[in-house]
Amino acid sequence: MGDYIEEIVEKSKQMDFRDSVDFTGKFKNIVIFGMGGSGIAGKIFQDLFTKVPVISLDSYEFPEFVDENSLFISISYSGNTEETLKATEMAMKKGAKVWAITSGGELSKMVKNVIMIPRGLQPRSAIGYLLNPLLLGSGLANEDSLREAKENLERLNKEHEELKKVADEIYLGNKIPAIFGFPPFRYIAYRLKTQFNENSKILAYWSYFPELNHNDTMPLKSTYRKDLFYFIALTYPNMNEMYLKRLKVTSRICDFNYREVKALGASIASQIYTSIHQGDLISYYLAKRRGVDPRDVSIIEELKKNLS
Amino acid sequence: MGDYIEEIVEKSKQMDFRDSVDFTGKFKNIVIFGMGGSGIAGKIFQDLFTKVPVISLDSYEFPEFVDENSLFISISYSGNTEETLKATEMAMKKGAKVWAITSGGELSKMVKNVIMIPRGLQPRSAIGYLLNPLLLGSGLANEDSLREAKENLERLNKEHEELKKVADEIYLGNKIPAIFGFPPFRYIAYRLKTQFNENSKILAYWSYFPELNHNDTMPLKSTYRKDLFYFIALTYPNMNEMYLKRLKVTSRICDFNYREVKALGASIASQIYTSIHQGDLISYYLAKRRGVDPRDVSIIEELKKNLS
Repeated sequence: MGDYIEEIVEKSKQMDFRDSVDFTGKFKNIVIFGMGGSGIAGKIFQDLFTKVPVISLDSYEFPEFVDENSLFISISYSGNTEETLKATEMAMKKGAKVWAITSGGELSKMVKNVIMIPRGLQPRSAIGYLLNPLLLGSGLANEDSLREAKENLERLNKEHEELKKVADEIYLGNKIPAIFGFPPFRYIAYRLKTQFNENSKILAYWSYFPELNHNDTMPLKSTYRKDLFYFIALTYPNMNEMYLKRLKVTSRICDFNYREVKALGASIASQIYTSIHQGDLISYYLAKRRGVDPRDVSIIEELKKNLS
Repeated sequence: MGDYIEEIVEKSKQMDFRDSVDFTGKFKNIVIFGMGGSGIAGKIFQDLFTKVPVISLDSYEFPEFVDENSLFISISYSGNTEETLKATEMAMKKGAKVWAITSGGELSKMVKNVIMIPRGLQPRSAIGYLLNPLLLGSGLANEDSLREAKENLERLNKEHEELKKVADEIYLGNKIPAIFGFPPFRYIAYRLKTQFNENSKILAYWSYFPELNHNDTMPLKSTYRKDLFYFIALTYPNMNEMYLKRLKVTSRICDFNYREVKALGASIASQIYTSIHQGDLISYYLAKRRGVDPRDVSIIEELKKNLS
């Protein structure tokens, strides 16, 4: 990752939009389009960067407001995602400034401003490549914070026993993971849900505080099938104390246990990547336990063929 | 509802922002804050109104971009929701134009521009009161479309047997509802999830097309605990044909059955309310079947006391 950091910092300088989104800047809003493993980058980013409205999109509807004052960032690892190509075409027609983050495909041909990333990965394994240009381009990360992330990831990789244990408990209890997220990192909980889907081939549930206190709290107290779920709370250092209080009070009043998986580090980048990585490892070990291939996404490929 | 339509149309004229959000308008963005049963109105609205970026919020983080060019709409049925009061205070400090939709409480005292709605309901039963000012104020609904909604709701109320049957099947099969939504109405699926939570006291799962084709599709094919779920697809007339195709192909390839619950009517208002109402009825009949009181939200109340 050492060379990678210098490389991505250099690449992302092209897309630097730090000076374009302040009050005098040319972009009044940022729209990020991406599906699944590629879209998660935009979902995480929209909660973290709030100098202008950031809208993360993942459907066929295209917003009216997109125009020459919009920065449109199109993310597709393969560069051939049907939904993403359609939306990018629309954005170009409407005169938005369009950037693409991709490893190739149609998208790299269509769009002039491209951050090219390496081929040969699963989109969900390329999260660093997909997200770093957004974090660096916006100033939410820099070379130092990426180095902190790298050091903390190496620390995590020395020892996986606790995470293996979580996978074991889910497997042996025949449980469905239920993941609690916390703003501004709630979409890391969504990411873990999708990792359980794609890597472990199991359905998973995600929700976030404080919103879940206004609905999920009712059934959590009831005993209706609560034993089916394995609760994971994705916490991070220096969380708003109200979130921690809500987690503790909810668990006490509703009488359920949860496993806390805590991010490491001081920077946003380190917290994002260490949280993601621990979740990825749990989903990976669960796949191994279940005897399924974490890389296999054949059904999604079959579906794409059936739709085209 | 006859008198109600005239009344809400009249009231919403105050908050009419149709002429303020076009290119020459004063509002560059709309921020809607609300939690749980009150927040759902903003979540549904943000996907439907796209003339300017609409950001729906439900957490303690407050976006930097909010300023005198923002229209901030604060929704709290009780008017005393902790998260909502904090955010509204911030919006006022930052000079945003603030409107509140509430039945009273602190919020009605804090904010000058208030759409007052009747007291004595559960927030989730007040969805029409909470959402109509947004639909009318933006021009997404008018008196005619609300009348169409009313007529179609009356039609639905003549006959609940099919919806009762869905509740029976969930109950007898000891299932967890998994609801599929479709943009731009995906948050109606989220609404139904929360109705299962609060009315029926059961956990429920929601997701939406086409995004779910990039993750959930994998476990749907596998047989891992798939039998636990009862799949409901909330469709609507004149859907983008790609959504219907995706639903059918996914169900075929992944080999699962689903129950289609289809909205009625030509207008956005009729489609929203008939879709919501059918879901509400399923969650209500499931509560009855389970012998729980659909009105009881005592745990949420207990939690609020423990947090204050």
